[in-house]
Amino acid sequence: VDEFEIIRRLFVPETKSASVIVGVGDDGAVLRPKPGYDLVTVVDTMVAGVHFPAYLRAEDVGYRSVAVNLSDIAAMGGDPKWMTLALTIHKAESEWLEGFARGLFSAATAHGVELVGGDTTSGSEIVVSVQITGEVAADRIITRSGARAGDAIYVSGTIGDASLGLARLQLPHEDAARSSDDNFLIRRFARPDARIAVGQAIASEATAAIDLSDGLYADLEKLLQASGVGGRIEVNDIPLSAALRAAADSAAVLHLALAGGDDYELCFTAPSAAFDGKSEIAGVPVTRIGQVTAGGQLSCTLAGNEYQYHHSGYRHFSEQ
Amino acid sequence: VDEFEIIRRLFVPETKSASVIVGVGDDGAVLRPKPGYDLVTVVDTMVAGVHFPAYLRAEDVGYRSVAVNLSDIAAMGGDPKWMTLALTIHKAESEWLEGFARGLFSAATAHGVELVGGDTTSGSEIVVSVQITGEVAADRIITRSGARAGDAIYVSGTIGDASLGLARLQLPHEDAARSSDDNFLIRRFARPDARIAVGQAIASEATAAIDLSDGLYADLEKLLQASGVGGRIEVNDIPLSAALRAAADSAAVLHLALAGGDDYELCFTAPSAAFDGKSEIAGVPVTRIGQVTAGGQLSCTLAGNEYQYHHSGYRHFSEQ
Repeated sequence: VDEFEIIRRLFVPETKSASVIVGVGDDGAVLRPKPGYDLVTVVDTMVAGVHFPAYLRAEDVGYRSVAVNLSDIAAMGGDPKWMTLALTIHKAESEWLEGFARGLFSAATAHGVELVGGDTTSGSEIVVSVQITGEVAADRIITRSGARAGDAIYVSGTIGDASLGLARLQLPHEDAARSSDDNFLIRRFARPDARIAVGQAIASEATAAIDLSDGLYADLEKLLQASGVGGRIEVNDIPLSAALRAAADSAAVLHLALAGGDDYELCFTAPSAAFDGKSEIAGVPVTRIGQVTAGGQLSCTLAGNEYQYHHSGYRHFSEQ
Repeated sequence: VDEFEIIRRLFVPETKSASVIVGVGDDGAVLRPKPGYDLVTVVDTMVAGVHFPAYLRAEDVGYRSVAVNLSDIAAMGGDPKWMTLALTIHKAESEWLEGFARGLFSAATAHGVELVGGDTTSGSEIVVSVQITGEVAADRIITRSGARAGDAIYVSGTIGDASLGLARLQLPHEDAARSSDDNFLIRRFARPDARIAVGQAIASEATAAIDLSDGLYADLEKLLQASGVGGRIEVNDIPLSAALRAAADSAAVLHLALAGGDDYELCFTAPSAAFDGKSEIAGVPVTRIGQVTAGGQLSCTLAGNEYQYHHSGYRHFSEQ
């Protein structure tokens, strides 16, 4: 089978919405934005062996490469619409491509995102760059820089699962031998849920938001620095899944909660009156974990006592 | 020096225009489109060793990665505005990155394009994905699919230079030993001029357009197929530079004119009354090379006699 035919069959959508005037197949796509709305645009690249294990299933690679971008759109309060894909692969293996496309479109169509352009090239390793553009009302944009002293700090979902899931995935295994907890944790890494509905629901009251890719402490620190404020979180208030609690001792759990990346939950700030009565937003659990302070540092307490968290200082070689 | 600092210093613009509400540094960029305009969006990936020789100067890699995308915007009649960059490199070598950034911004700022987001990752080879979004009035979009029997076929600039330039670049050499013709041809490969102004100037009268990346014959064939028509071109009418004519015998020149890629000139169709009197458009030479026919094939004549052009059938493993 001709590799171009495989790619055409897998990646050229059969239908397009009214907002897509010209889709895949011309020199470029032509898109019609909603009058009066701003655009929000994000791009994220994943390299096999760097951002995910080379043996991650093709379907999960496709899903995850869309989900991590949707997560950035969620953190801006946006409504995702259009996607472009730049895919570098060693060879057009139809089975791998089919799985990849299935995962990609599964994540995209769940949020109404259409593929409008792409470019497939050959190279020595798998590099997936997805770029997503969405719409956002000008008065509903959430940046990282609006947090104010006195605001409450919240997170969606549960924290730390994905990094333990990645560790599980890296163990030698037989699928059959994995517990349901293991499968839950692995799924949290391989198939992150982008919190689009949460981002939109909080947009008018949240003062700042960031999605959690590098770990709660590191990402919250970025938000606070961008806002020129400090913060304090109570470590015992960080929401943890039963699977995480069951899998690790308390020291390991603390580490995973503060340093574990890849959860793609939202961390956001808002005046405490806005969400304190709510245990969930748009069907997703939301938990208050601390408060924004005027000082310039992020500090932690553990059951009310000061807890010195030592940041490993590791930074991914990756920046938005 | 911290590699993040290098990247921040090189790629985070100091100023932004009014259309960029949030630029690099948040979860995503927020952009304000012009009311009533559609968006045109393109993406193109270049892999070292596949799309350009690994020894191409960093500055030219940066320039070219923007220019090839601008060329797609030009072929749609668009006005380019915002750019995202997904860069995979082996190691953050500051000298290479500085050259790359210089070339990237040189091509971008020449056309008023702003970098609004990016992602730098490490990998085993250089992969550059640039995505550019522009604006276009709904009644000014040029697609590939509007050519009609009887339209004239035009090209901008001169054809075949870039592929000979690439061949020159691949020869062992001392810079000092290159003739000015060689340098002209190499520059045509390394620093293509995106025909943005031409695309906008022809937009209201052109019926179809494509930019020339894979060769005149192959790309014109795509345009005609997308339009459901055929065409005939007179090979002697294809505009050639003096440097190309001087460097090759007539058989080689014919081959370069029909099959040579990477020129990034525009090929377009229009009713013959529209541009036949003009020798240039927006300061760029424009030449009529043939005519659209009702039949489904692209045929060639040489000095009026039928010329059987045998397509090599080689296709890049790359598709828009």
